[in-house]
Amino acid sequence: MSGGKAPGETISAGVLDLFGLLAYAELVAFFRLSEDAALASSLADKAALGEMAVAEFGHFRLLSERIARLNTSPEEAMSPFVAPLDAFHARTAPADWLQGLVKAYVGDGFAADFYRAVAELLDPESRALVLEVLADTGHADFVVSRVRAAIAADPPLAGRLALWARRLVGEALAQAHRVAAERAPLAALLVSGDAARQGDIARMFAHLTDAHDQRMSALGLADWEKPPSGTAG
Amino acid sequence: MSGGKAPGETISAGVLDLFGLLAYAELVAFFRLSEDAALASSLADKAALGEMAVAEFGHFRLLSERIARLNTSPEEAMSPFVAPLDAFHARTAPADWLQGLVKAYVGDGFAADFYRAVAELLDPESRALVLEVLADTGHADFVVSRVRAAIAADPPLAGRLALWARRLVGEALAQAHRVAAERAPLAALLVSGDAARQGDIARMFAHLTDAHDQRMSALGLADWEKPPSGTAG
Repeated sequence: MSGGKAPGETISAGVLDLFGLLAYAELVAFFRLSEDAALASSLADKAALGEMAVAEFGHFRLLSERIARLNTSPEEAMSPFVAPLDAFHARTAPADWLQGLVKAYVGDGFAADFYRAVAELLDPESRALVLEVLADTGHADFVVSRVRAAIAADPPLAGRLALWARRLVGEALAQAHRVAAERAPLAALLVSGDAARQGDIARMFAHLTDAHDQRMSALGLADWEKPPSGTAG
Repeated sequence: MSGGKAPGETISAGVLDLFGLLAYAELVAFFRLSEDAALASSLADKAALGEMAVAEFGHFRLLSERIARLNTSPEEAMSPFVAPLDAFHARTAPADWLQGLVKAYVGDGFAADFYRAVAELLDPESRALVLEVLADTGHADFVVSRVRAAIAADPPLAGRLALWARRLVGEALAQAHRVAAERAPLAALLVSGDAARQGDIARMFAHLTDAHDQRMSALGLADWEKPPSGTAG
């Protein structure tokens, strides 16, 4: 907490872009988790997913407040990212509740790792905010236990969910490229700073891939994603 | 705040019924407002409705915690009311965003007045909890301004929305009768206490009707609901 800042505080356009993108992503996460909660078959699952949705809305609120302190309306900061994020979600609409859970865990996990890497390039206050809004809301444990139980009950599910997870990551990367191409300030942020030299970007993607593999293992989907020669899981 | 109570605290079955009913009603209100938020056309409206949804979830959480302190699982307390409330919502599914707003304002307002009247029969701690979870979350002002603006832009809407509001109240009363008939403890609560003598129940319904008329006036729908001989509005 660095206390109140004077009105008119400025920040790079790239960081403002990042806040706007994250704010809209959190708002959509809230809608999606609320919908998953409404569709859950037990009241306990409805309540648990509802709690997670509310936590995401809290993240959205933090980002909106930060954007407003920068004398920008949250709507204005979010608006460039509405179309690409909506397009991603339209192209990856879950066919059922389990696909929705996997999407939230694998897709959001991948995005969060990416944003965390970007956060390393920010000033300390902005970095702290980004890390706070990316904190897991208990969703990971919830998803892992539900997906593993579903696969135990119906083993062929694993192959279908692994395919789904692969598609999610492909679509996420495609949309990320589109956003970077269209938003010069955000792209400039990514290639600013020492941490963003080419070698580091390659290292960042290697790290993202490793973390993704770990999530697939946690779900019991690792063996399905890659040829079984490795030591997945 | 009366502080912690000993485990095993007891309360009448009727009050526990009321808490369970309200808890499920608040959970459903959260789902419905989240959905209205997702469907709102502007980002500002999405955020405003999202805030209200989160406030309803907070009410659900308060009721769940209170039920858990009574050594009952919230799921168990809610379960008798899932079917009747789901039936009400299935029979009154809004055809569009405006119908959704009117439903939340007119339908929830009517229900809240009823619950407030019941709260008068409760012990002070239970009454305070019921009044707290029924507090308006800013939704009323939001709905009134949006509905009035929509009617100003398209006057024939008023007649259709007035008809919709009348249907909502009819369905709400039908479901309330069904719940009272099926849940003896809740019905016993209603006819307990001095306040529930026959004359008082008639007075309560007169009050509910007055409050409903006021909401219809606030929306600009009063002239459409009744013959224009009165002084509606």
